[in-house]
Amino acid sequence: MQTMYLRKKIAPRVENGHPWIFANEIDTARSTTATTPEAGDIVEVRNAQDKFVGYGYINPKSQILVRLLSRNQKDVIDEAFFHRRIAEAWAYRQHIGYTENCRLIFGEADEMPALIIDKFNDYFVLQTLAYGMEVWKPAIVKALNSIFSPKGIYERNDVPVRELEGLPQIKGFLSEPFDTNIIINENGLKFHIDILNGQKTGYFLDQQDNRRAIQHIVKGADVLEAFCYTGTFSVHAGHYGAKSVLGLDISENAVAQARRNAELNGLQNICQFQAVNAFDALKQWTKDGRQYDVVILDPPAFTKSRENIQKAITGYKEINLRGMKLVKPGGFLVTASCTNLVQPDLFLQIIDMAAKNARKKLRQVTYQTQASDHPIVWGMENTEYLKFLIVEVK
Amino acid sequence: MQTMYLRKKIAPRVENGHPWIFANEIDTARSTTATTPEAGDIVEVRNAQDKFVGYGYINPKSQILVRLLSRNQKDVIDEAFFHRRIAEAWAYRQHIGYTENCRLIFGEADEMPALIIDKFNDYFVLQTLAYGMEVWKPAIVKALNSIFSPKGIYERNDVPVRELEGLPQIKGFLSEPFDTNIIINENGLKFHIDILNGQKTGYFLDQQDNRRAIQHIVKGADVLEAFCYTGTFSVHAGHYGAKSVLGLDISENAVAQARRNAELNGLQNICQFQAVNAFDALKQWTKDGRQYDVVILDPPAFTKSRENIQKAITGYKEINLRGMKLVKPGGFLVTASCTNLVQPDLFLQIIDMAAKNARKKLRQVTYQTQASDHPIVWGMENTEYLKFLIVEVK
Repeated sequence: MQTMYLRKKIAPRVENGHPWIFANEIDTARSTTATTPEAGDIVEVRNAQDKFVGYGYINPKSQILVRLLSRNQKDVIDEAFFHRRIAEAWAYRQHIGYTENCRLIFGEADEMPALIIDKFNDYFVLQTLAYGMEVWKPAIVKALNSIFSPKGIYERNDVPVRELEGLPQIKGFLSEPFDTNIIINENGLKFHIDILNGQKTGYFLDQQDNRRAIQHIVKGADVLEAFCYTGTFSVHAGHYGAKSVLGLDISENAVAQARRNAELNGLQNICQFQAVNAFDALKQWTKDGRQYDVVILDPPAFTKSRENIQKAITGYKEINLRGMKLVKPGGFLVTASCTNLVQPDLFLQIIDMAAKNARKKLRQVTYQTQASDHPIVWGMENTEYLKFLIVEVK
Repeated sequence: MQTMYLRKKIAPRVENGHPWIFANEIDTARSTTATTPEAGDIVEVRNAQDKFVGYGYINPKSQILVRLLSRNQKDVIDEAFFHRRIAEAWAYRQHIGYTENCRLIFGEADEMPALIIDKFNDYFVLQTLAYGMEVWKPAIVKALNSIFSPKGIYERNDVPVRELEGLPQIKGFLSEPFDTNIIINENGLKFHIDILNGQKTGYFLDQQDNRRAIQHIVKGADVLEAFCYTGTFSVHAGHYGAKSVLGLDISENAVAQARRNAELNGLQNICQFQAVNAFDALKQWTKDGRQYDVVILDPPAFTKSRENIQKAITGYKEINLRGMKLVKPGGFLVTASCTNLVQPDLFLQIIDMAAKNARKKLRQVTYQTQASDHPIVWGMENTEYLKFLIVEVK
């Protein structure tokens, strides 16, 4: 195994726990040997003082040269290692209360950089987003089969980020083919998931605890949800006793699925859905003076790059300002943001600015992050990404 | 009613929503009239441009000269005003899911500066912490009687902060006398409350939602709680399936009450309590190599003044470092801090430092503030005071 040495004068980020090592953090002269490591090779990383730091996989094509898999010198990175890590991750989720569905592996937060596995009862959807993780896909599938005896495993590797690693965008079965339209149970409700064509892995498990947080405020309420996707918040609102729910999404497919989800739970008379541009609708309806008891905003990430951060800020401010205006005095705004580029403090500042512009007074009812099956590791910014806020609007 | 004018060049804090006006923010020359306002008088506050800001009560003896009660020019500050405010606060708590017990009035966050009212089923405990609120005590009691027909009302005004307002420290009945040892229901459990002698208003309602958050992690676990006071977290742990629970508190009275709370819920065989100095015990037991699946730390505020902030930081770091060392690898630390002088970011930094010193790796499971019946108003620092964190410790 090749040894890579860290340079002397770099920030202590890696030694403090961050698993990513950039090319400019490596002491190239000291690390060079006769054989150049190839993409996917496991390397040993040592610091400038020749102290063991960890084992990781390398990809000379990637900006992130090495991603650490282990900081335990006794570990051997083999099939058994992946089996153990996945078993541990499952034990952890069970320990904190997850039974049927969960994010089983949340990449870096589970010391499995660039690996995502979502468990939807007996079905598993995975993403291997770096070359060095891609090569272990057979080991990962073997471990899933051994631990869970699943009904199906699917890869949703149709994501652009793979190309930075020199990997193709693909999706397909990693088990015998199965019907990729499945149904899961969540908070006493049922939801259709389209593993093949749904966004990301097919379903946003990260909001599953937050969906329960609207339980009391929607009772007897007229609820508007913008960016409702497949209607999960809307259906929860109906279930928790809303008088009426209107969900908006620009995608006809999403709205069709939302209607099916409402029907699946016998809430089709309460929950209505419209395929419209939520930006436009919020704007027009604000002008029309429409009013709701509760407005829910769960928009997609408005940016994926730091350069467009101002665009994201403007977008969040805009929709929240409009959302607030649509809330009756004393009603509630439920608002989320799923990009880690907008960190919690900034998100709250944006909402505060929107309130000042809308001349509304807010009181914070609830603030939460993503569900606990997506653990946050301090110092790894990308593990704290979801902001979920409920405020009273006056 | 006397008019007080704000000075021209002051920070926009008050106009942005903060209810406290300090003496040096008042344009004294412009505000002076033939009659000097007396402590408790209602005054009108206008800005330098003569625009209405609000109505508030004044206390020339206090550092905080005026505290605003209303920003609505049409309001009349009278008995009916207090009745309306209390009724609104109750409607709000019911709206967000509270039924039996809640902080009914959380001072500034309910636009009732310096007023605290806790509702323990049919009993009410109040604190009037400023002169201008004290004078409305009869109106407040009248409103409580009219809205709730309570079994009893008690004032726990035995707090030093009252002296800054020129008020005596007192406690006593504001209704017919009643047995001040009562029992409340919380999360399916029962707890004794000693209204007369318990800390603050007798019970810490602010952790009531957080007590539910330990539900999964304590299952089958050996649990240690330090600073357990009357054992509410410990009894919850027993109820949620802990194998054993040991609660520590320096107060013999608190421990006796904790034992009674365990018995009240049939958990006396699971939950044991010891009257010891938790600092010393944590230190000794760390040396002895004791290990628990879950360690809970719910200490009192280590400081009440900004000058002693470093002492508080040291105290929090110390107990958390020891607490972590007592957690088995893969177990959980549940840790809280109740002083607003240590804001959330700083609290998390302290825990992070403690982990580095203890050579432990943490993953955040849950982070919460105080329960939603204590709403947070952004820009009013003292409304965001409770930090509650669960981390996995490895």
